[in-house]
Amino acid sequence: QNIIISHKFCLPEPQNNFMNGKSLYLSSRTMASKTPVGFIGLGNMGSPMAKNLLKNGYPVICTDVFPESCNEMQVSGAQVVDTPADVAEKADRIITMLPSSPNVIDVYTGNNGILKKVKKGTLLIDSSTIDPYVSKEMAVTAEKMGAVFMDAPVSGGVGAASLAKLTFMVGGPEEEYTAAQELLTCMGANVVYCGLVGTGQAAKICNNMLLAIGMIGTAETMNLGIRLGLDPKLLAQVLNMSSGRCWSSDTYNPVPGVMEGVPSANNYQGGFGTTLMAKDLGFAQSTATSTRSPIPLGSMAHQIFRVMCSRGYANKDFSSIFQFLREEEGQ
Amino acid sequence: QNIIISHKFCLPEPQNNFMNGKSLYLSSRTMASKTPVGFIGLGNMGSPMAKNLLKNGYPVICTDVFPESCNEMQVSGAQVVDTPADVAEKADRIITMLPSSPNVIDVYTGNNGILKKVKKGTLLIDSSTIDPYVSKEMAVTAEKMGAVFMDAPVSGGVGAASLAKLTFMVGGPEEEYTAAQELLTCMGANVVYCGLVGTGQAAKICNNMLLAIGMIGTAETMNLGIRLGLDPKLLAQVLNMSSGRCWSSDTYNPVPGVMEGVPSANNYQGGFGTTLMAKDLGFAQSTATSTRSPIPLGSMAHQIFRVMCSRGYANKDFSSIFQFLREEEGQ
Amino acid sequence: QNIIISHKFCLPEPQNNFMNGKSLYLSSRTMASKTPVGFIGLGNMGSPMAKNLLKNGYPVICTDVFPESCNEMQVSGAQVVDTPADVAEKADRIITMLPSSPNVIDVYTGNNGILKKVKKGTLLIDSSTIDPYVSKEMAVTAEKMGAVFMDAPVSGGVGAASLAKLTFMVGGPEEEYTAAQELLTCMGANVVYCGLVGTGQAAKICNNMLLAIGMIGTAETMNLGIRLGLDPKLLAQVLNMSSGRCWSSDTYNPVPGVMEGVPSANNYQGGFGTTLMAKDLGFAQSTATSTRSPIPLGSMAHQIFRVMCSRGYANKDFSSIFQFLREEEGQ
Amino acid sequence: QNIIISHKFCLPEPQNNFMNGKSLYLSSRTMASKTPVGFIGLGNMGSPMAKNLLKNGYPVICTDVFPESCNEMQVSGAQVVDTPADVAEKADRIITMLPSSPNVIDVYTGNNGILKKVKKGTLLIDSSTIDPYVSKEMAVTAEKMGAVFMDAPVSGGVGAASLAKLTFMVGGPEEEYTAAQELLTCMGANVVYCGLVGTGQAAKICNNMLLAIGMIGTAETMNLGIRLGLDPKLLAQVLNMSSGRCWSSDTYNPVPGVMEGVPSANNYQGGFGTTLMAKDLGFAQSTATSTRSPIPLGSMAHQIFRVMCSRGYANKDFSSIFQFLREEEGQ
Repeated sequence: QNIIISHKFCLPEPQNNFMNGKSLYLSSRTMASKTPVGFIGLGNMGSPMAKNLLKNGYPVICTDVFPESCNEMQVSGAQVVDTPADVAEKADRIITMLPSSPNVIDVYTGNNGILKKVKKGTLLIDSSTIDPYVSKEMAVTAEKMGAVFMDAPVSGGVGAASLAKLTFMVGGPEEEYTAAQELLTCMGANVVYCGLVGTGQAAKICNNMLLAIGMIGTAETMNLGIRLGLDPKLLAQVLNMSSGRCWSSDTYNPVPGVMEGVPSANNYQGGFGTTLMAKDLGFAQSTATSTRSPIPLGSMAHQIFRVMCSRGYANKDFSSIFQFLREEEGQ
Repeated sequence: QNIIISHKFCLPEPQNNFMNGKSLYLSSRTMASKTPVGFIGLGNMGSPMAKNLLKNGYPVICTDVFPESCNEMQVSGAQVVDTPADVAEKADRIITMLPSSPNVIDVYTGNNGILKKVKKGTLLIDSSTIDPYVSKEMAVTAEKMGAVFMDAPVSGGVGAASLAKLTFMVGGPEEEYTAAQELLTCMGANVVYCGLVGTGQAAKICNNMLLAIGMIGTAETMNLGIRLGLDPKLLAQVLNMSSGRCWSSDTYNPVPGVMEGVPSANNYQGGFGTTLMAKDLGFAQSTATSTRSPIPLGSMAHQIFRVMCSRGYANKDFSSIFQFLREEEGQ
Repeated sequence: QNIIISHKFCLPEPQNNFMNGKSLYLSSRTMASKTPVGFIGLGNMGSPMAKNLLKNGYPVICTDVFPESCNEMQVSGAQVVDTPADVAEKADRIITMLPSSPNVIDVYTGNNGILKKVKKGTLLIDSSTIDPYVSKEMAVTAEKMGAVFMDAPVSGGVGAASLAKLTFMVGGPEEEYTAAQELLTCMGANVVYCGLVGTGQAAKICNNMLLAIGMIGTAETMNLGIRLGLDPKLLAQVLNMSSGRCWSSDTYNPVPGVMEGVPSANNYQGGFGTTLMAKDLGFAQSTATSTRSPIPLGSMAHQIFRVMCSRGYANKDFSSIFQFLREEEGQ
Repeated sequence: QNIIISHKFCLPEPQNNFMNGKSLYLSSRTMASKTPVGFIGLGNMGSPMAKNLLKNGYPVICTDVFPESCNEMQVSGAQVVDTPADVAEKADRIITMLPSSPNVIDVYTGNNGILKKVKKGTLLIDSSTIDPYVSKEMAVTAEKMGAVFMDAPVSGGVGAASLAKLTFMVGGPEEEYTAAQELLTCMGANVVYCGLVGTGQAAKICNNMLLAIGMIGTAETMNLGIRLGLDPKLLAQVLNMSSGRCWSSDTYNPVPGVMEGVPSANNYQGGFGTTLMAKDLGFAQSTATSTRSPIPLGSMAHQIFRVMCSRGYANKDFSSIFQFLREEEGQ
């Protein structure tokens, strides 16, 4: 198989040249040649993503159900329209970034949805994290209208979205990948082509499932080690130089005091909420069930985060599993 | 807390200087000053470890229950004696490398055990992987005889033992650590001081528990991804650049065809047997139970490897969990 | 809430009276007043169910994709037609008993489906075990055509179907329950009204999830007890007089030699296949995910039966979990 | 194997005859022939058990570390002595009822322990729930002193202890069983002979493991069903007439409002504390680990109750798992 991973080629640095006459001229010319890009879904993630398109010289035509989000984008230089259908009328490349499957279904196939007015040949890129089966359905429906649908969910949070350092996992027809890549590299540091439509979601789901398992495993291990008399920083160091090493132990350690700049250093605020992780594990669970794939630890991770949501941890970072497992003082 | 990690300072390279007159002289003088080291347990791991002590110029006095192992060491230049007690009579630094807790108890406290003839001030270093409670008991018993017991289990297999690239996790009195370190650096690339006696075992148990969780998680994730249409190599690449990354995904991938030089590329032969992993998870389970630490995924990993042992995977590498989970052809 | 549980009121015994003049006369008169019942899906379960309707004097109009099944029913006295639509044309009470959700969707909404020719006021009773969401969708679609859809999945196997001893769990409009009950009591010993449409499926899913957990728990417990030196029969007896008692320990014990007449006494042949249990647990998993209900043991039970399916236990009775967990000889 | 289950033959009713001259005479004669029984451990369970011995006419010689407990027994007619050794000096049948393994070890082998002054031929019956390995060790040590040790843990709580309705599971030499039975039937409704020493503990551990699994399973199932729209009472009724039936669903339902007279009807107060269940599951875990028996659900149940202990449920009845899993209001 042909593996295609594109590293970002339109870095933000050249923007500094805007201050410089020649570059400005060049830049303007480039901008002139850029046709508008539609953007639907201007939340915490969508907003900075759309702004990065603007920074890279793409006119942006956008909409959102929240007027404030629209106003903010207008101030940044985007054109705001009323509905997804209106976006589809004016742009032949559209990016969507929405919270869940029903929103995606509505934005694409609703009464004022994209597909009501989509032009033939339009490239539709959905960066939402949703059920891969919905992605496949959207692709089939779009194809009937002569449009191309690709799924391109992201890894990386709001910070990465602002800094254009997201990772995009892209599924869809390989011949359309170059066109998608042109836009996605303006918003992300890595763009990976994963295969047919739905495989972008599949890759994201797989990554987050292994992340969830690694995080709970790290939390259990750190808690056990501390109770056995090990210093948390030392234990993290031992794990990270050994075969226990994982992203949750070396980059996002869940034990307060071990690392700085991570949610565990800030009372588990910010980061990736337990409820969002539970949602993604729900997708892992559904796809595992429908493909009859056994996922004993993935499934258990799902249930653990579900219980945490029921017990008041819904909005804390998912690394708060350490706090959840640790014995309370005085017990 | 004072964290001490020693990187190997007596590398094998200087040995090349033996060919050179001056160095040989210097080396001889150094060797002359080295007092003998006892070594008990000359199995797959102990044998190359003892040979590395010889290579570093330490006279070695050793014993084992298997005569062939003793003969092999004699050919390599070690002095062989009959019993652990005999070793204790002739050496005041003794290393033990034994398969399980009962062997350790016997070698230390049995009728012909070390403690029958141990000299005051002797340094006893046990590199076996055993229950930390046994380590603590041995330390208390040794202390009554005026000797010092340290636990120093290793991570790394037979290959690392031969190349002196083991990692030692050391527990015991901090003031004795330098003396232990002198010997251990001849056999390993990393020596980590973990704290009081038993913490070496604790660190090893913690690492292997997280390793087990990461491996099962990786196997589940790769299997799910493949069933969702992802290419295994591509999926591994995506995980390894994202938050799903762990040692089992980037260094020891369990899916045949993804990496070379790992057991999954060789029908899961060699490596770290499922039955050994189940043994280590048994220690994790016991210590978690006695310290009342919840380990949901560690516990589940333990049970999964147990079932694998019952179903014919006992002697395959533990990464064969991928094979265990994957649907058989024709099902 | 008004709980309605109907115990079978048309028992098979009165049929003996057919031999008796008076009763025959009475019976004939009753039969004369019975309008035909449609039956779609004449498999292992559907066939004996339809025959029990015939035995109770209902003319049956039926169809199935397998001609042999149709022939067999024709011999038994039923009228066979070509398609579900044909059944709908001739009967205003229709029972369906199909293997999975896609079959149900096709039989109801396909090109030759029931709803193509359904008459206003028709009562549709689906006894298939399917996703409750599909049941709800079918109900909505049927309602648009002026028909009433109820879900009425069964518990009990082929034997119970033949003996008219099934348990029906019924969901749908309460005012239609009496009409449904009239037919269902001819095929089952217990008919339970559970609530709105979909709750029949919900009750069935819940029961089978707890059954799966109890069975695995019983198998683990029996295996552990045997290894601790307990006699299996004695252990079963102790559990059954204590708080460990459950259906799997006292009625369907998974350990060979403890009970007679159960699959464990017959090399786990017959009974309820592991693959069917895994299917039902898939429904439990999906509904738990969509309602955000944590099911740690249910989820784990699902994964365990999945692994068993991958390892060659797909067609054995689900109590073969005991065999799966037990250590093989010579390990 | 010869299975022996004794149903209580010395019921409390005959005591009424004490009011009657003849019976009193008879009773006195019987009492006169009864030699004293030692009793050590006068807690919530031990106290009513010892009183039942008194009621049955056995002189009781007892001790406990808490003076109040001793005073209470003195008032009831028992003779109080200072230490277990003193008990052993005066009685040749001794029952112990202690909270944990270390207490048992101390009471038997401590400085003032039973074995310091035990007479040859003494029958020692330990009704504590402890690690079966400790039971075996005590038996070996007792045998060296010419005494016989039997393990006889109970099932049933404080209420059953008061009403002499406990179930005893007895391990030890079969030839001593009749002697043990004579005493145990005064305190319990069922006495079961399980086999060699340690099998009493094994049976108890097995029962409680299956109980724990059944309880969590019932809680998950009831919670899922309620979220799917089922009425809790109806669901319990459906389960109890089907294959999901278990002691936790039909006798001790964890959902408030389904049953009366159980802890779930009383805010989970009273009953069997989560922390005690976690302790018993710790024994299950240890014995499973040492016998290499896979217990996936037992192990998970252990971890779940551990987490509950860490989250404030330690002293609630173990059926509070329903509350723990249920989503909090407003989440």
